[in-house]
Amino acid sequence: MSDTPTDYAFGMIGLGTMGRNLLLNMADHGFAVAGYDKNQKQVDLLGQEGQGKPVKGFTNAKAFVQSIKTPRAIMMLVPAGAIVDSVIADMTPLLAPGDILIDGGNSYYLDTERRDKELDAKGLHFFGMGVSGGEEGARFGPSMMPGGDKDAYKTMQPVFEAIAAKVDGAPCVAWMGPGAAGHFVKMVHNGIEYGLMELIAETYGVLKTGLGMDNAAIGQVFAQWNEGRLQSFLLDITKDIFAFNAPDSDHLLLDDIKDEARAKGTGKWTSQVAMDLQAPLPTVDTAVSMRDLSKYKQLREQLAQQYGPAAGQLAGDKEEILKQLENAFYFSMIMSYAQGMHMLARASEEFKYDLQLATIAKIWRGGCIIRSAFLNDIFNAYEGNNQLAHLLLDGKVQQLVQGSVGGSRTVIAAAVTAGLPVPAYTSALGYFDAFRTGRLPSNLIQAQRDYFGAHTYELIGKEGVFHTQWTGMRSKPEAPAGTAANQPPATPPVAGNKQSNEEPTTPQA
Amino acid sequence: MSDTPTDYAFGMIGLGTMGRNLLLNMADHGFAVAGYDKNQKQVDLLGQEGQGKPVKGFTNAKAFVQSIKTPRAIMMLVPAGAIVDSVIADMTPLLAPGDILIDGGNSYYLDTERRDKELDAKGLHFFGMGVSGGEEGARFGPSMMPGGDKDAYKTMQPVFEAIAAKVDGAPCVAWMGPGAAGHFVKMVHNGIEYGLMELIAETYGVLKTGLGMDNAAIGQVFAQWNEGRLQSFLLDITKDIFAFNAPDSDHLLLDDIKDEARAKGTGKWTSQVAMDLQAPLPTVDTAVSMRDLSKYKQLREQLAQQYGPAAGQLAGDKEEILKQLENAFYFSMIMSYAQGMHMLARASEEFKYDLQLATIAKIWRGGCIIRSAFLNDIFNAYEGNNQLAHLLLDGKVQQLVQGSVGGSRTVIAAAVTAGLPVPAYTSALGYFDAFRTGRLPSNLIQAQRDYFGAHTYELIGKEGVFHTQWTGMRSKPEAPAGTAANQPPATPPVAGNKQSNEEPTTPQA
Repeated sequence: MSDTPTDYAFGMIGLGTMGRNLLLNMADHGFAVAGYDKNQKQVDLLGQEGQGKPVKGFTNAKAFVQSIKTPRAIMMLVPAGAIVDSVIADMTPLLAPGDILIDGGNSYYLDTERRDKELDAKGLHFFGMGVSGGEEGARFGPSMMPGGDKDAYKTMQPVFEAIAAKVDGAPCVAWMGPGAAGHFVKMVHNGIEYGLMELIAETYGVLKTGLGMDNAAIGQVFAQWNEGRLQSFLLDITKDIFAFNAPDSDHLLLDDIKDEARAKGTGKWTSQVAMDLQAPLPTVDTAVSMRDLSKYKQLREQLAQQYGPAAGQLAGDKEEILKQLENAFYFSMIMSYAQGMHMLARASEEFKYDLQLATIAKIWRGGCIIRSAFLNDIFNAYEGNNQLAHLLLDGKVQQLVQGSVGGSRTVIAAAVTAGLPVPAYTSALGYFDAFRTGRLPSNLIQAQRDYFGAHTYELIGKEGVFHTQWTGMRSKPEAPAGTAANQPPATPPVAGNKQSNEEPTTPQA
Repeated sequence: MSDTPTDYAFGMIGLGTMGRNLLLNMADHGFAVAGYDKNQKQVDLLGQEGQGKPVKGFTNAKAFVQSIKTPRAIMMLVPAGAIVDSVIADMTPLLAPGDILIDGGNSYYLDTERRDKELDAKGLHFFGMGVSGGEEGARFGPSMMPGGDKDAYKTMQPVFEAIAAKVDGAPCVAWMGPGAAGHFVKMVHNGIEYGLMELIAETYGVLKTGLGMDNAAIGQVFAQWNEGRLQSFLLDITKDIFAFNAPDSDHLLLDDIKDEARAKGTGKWTSQVAMDLQAPLPTVDTAVSMRDLSKYKQLREQLAQQYGPAAGQLAGDKEEILKQLENAFYFSMIMSYAQGMHMLARASEEFKYDLQLATIAKIWRGGCIIRSAFLNDIFNAYEGNNQLAHLLLDGKVQQLVQGSVGGSRTVIAAAVTAGLPVPAYTSALGYFDAFRTGRLPSNLIQAQRDYFGAHTYELIGKEGVFHTQWTGMRSKPEAPAGTAANQPPATPPVAGNKQSNEEPTTPQA
């Protein structure tokens, strides 16, 4: 360890838990690293935790920057939003062309695109990098999703590959693509995470309310599931949570926690961006709206009182339902990942990220929050077949889906009958049943849109767009008193119709 | 009719079908009106259609503006987006302080807010106004939702009240609130419209595939429903669509229309903004994602082939299912409106619109696309009770919900068993079942978030936020070859736990 300037291999701005843990992780792998925070307390913490390791903290930005080997690789781990811009403004005058600045937070991908352009104009390489794994991942092996200039990535690659989680010896980090590709992939990761967490919460509801199980038995179910094909980080920590008592008590801490789910916004972004990309993501949408709904606690209690006792126990054999619930969870989990992978494929096309879906599945297998046994199947589906249009087209995945979808049908039918909310489960099944329907009833939506708004429609086997005058322009009806609306007269529809392939001017609903 | 300048009561920019029809509607009510379009063809069309009416078209912007009585009220009906800004830039130099410029298109509410501020600085009143009813509504009575300066509204009020749809003699137009309130309300209207249309499409799927009915029988169902409590514009046109043959054929035009649903974006905005407002809107979300899903036609056909025959007929007595389907539709329709009204209440709070929910229900009863008999119940619920926290709290609505929710359970259980996608139906039921649950399983989500990301949680009956070290920081595990992830060792959770109410620095997932 040395105090001499230009000695450090890597710099970190922001010495919160995540930043310190990543530095300590690097130091453990033999890299001499420097940290910077305006707050002396955080620098002191780094000093204590890094005792005996090649790590040094600074409160002076200039000294910090000068201590790092050029071309420098410096990461920011500060809250997303305006603070990132402010740190960039402070730091850029201290950096030299060719240096790399990395945003390791959960920044919105459009912010990352903007910053990439701004810093590129100054000769700096900007990397938006998703980091997943929480505190523990940062300390002992996160999954990392960097995006930006591919050549510049080589400077950081040895450090990142050393500190990343490893699965079968392979590091859980890879260059994702240009521009904001890294933050985009991380955003979708978090969207999938929202969906899986909502599925687990609904499962807890089914076990507790629908099957009347106590916490010990529920914990056993999650622990058992986690031993099998459902193995995943989220089930693993769920199992732990079901074994964790409140301080000085004989009941679970979980039982004392308020049922109002908070969010930091990445799940919401995933849904919003999916809608912009026209990629259906119903399970994430549901997870987002359910978190939102959970916050109206008082209203929920009022409605619960007013509408009487809510859900009851599920009908049917308990053991059989438990068995089918495992199938249902497996099926819904597959659909959650499938939706996310499809969104990534759409984004790759739209933003020219050239995402390698197998690589993404591979680096998600370790370190990150959505790591699970199933990611091996996702990896296998896309490995050597990046153009696979949808995960559900893969033969192995098809087998897994067909073997488990029956569980979803059984559990959902029982839950909706009993009044137990399972919206994420139903969203996953609805996604599957709709996607495997060659002919949807959506032709009716097109007919309606053309009827009331002249929005036109397309015809099977005929080029062009068409508009029909579905009724003659009706004379102004006066609604009879007491009825709801301006009723059109009950004339039969006009027999003939004009079809034209002319786009109407300013159609609107 | 006169050509003399400063004679016209109202001006219209953009003489597409909607613009022309609104002008003709005004002329029918005795107002002398002027229209402007750069395109001579559109002006000619107005001249033909307006023969004998006090209406005149211009291709010269200055002459058009000068022909209108001051303070002028001029509406734009041009496509939303950049064109609106361009028209505003062209027109403002010709206008005088105190004039009113109205954007009658489906502009995004944040654009309207920006334009409101920009034009206010120039002494002009800007109104964002939602206009619903399509071509026919524009011609014979639309529902209109203007928002902006309340005093300035008085200038336009006589014209708008004259041309609006009437229900029981009351015009379907009212000042919604300041700023972008009008466009916001119209956006939510369109979101509800998306939900209802998806519900009707899914109903069509249930009738056709689930009950094996032919088009004539399906049309009869929709026609019958439209005679009862389900009476609505959308069912009314659906009934018409099921009686409309393709040209020179003996089959429905509907059957020739492609099942890929398009969208103009207002439904998507509604879902995206609802997520920003943390107002759960799952039925609209589902309608948006289902329209998106429908566009992947080739993929759907591939999956249909690969996964074999999709949905089959529903089990159970057909007549009974039909009866329950009417209940299910009624229930889901109530939930769609309830979600939209709740979003409006949230937006009113957030943006200080001071929306009057009874007034909104009242002006939606006629002229607009979502007009229905049920809007009378919504009106009654909020009339004199604008602070009602949720439509489902209303006693009458409660009766209607309790009388119909069983139908949803029956139909959904049958449909998910048969493999028939009914995602909007399930979203509506999930919304209800979750909202009437006093204690949701969302406490588990909070425990998980705190476990992996130190995001903290709240405790029942105890102030503050808390963080727990759910496990000791585990030493770095090496995943055994062939397993999926960095498995934490199977140590029992730490018995004690530290609780602190200190917000962690930079928590992240």
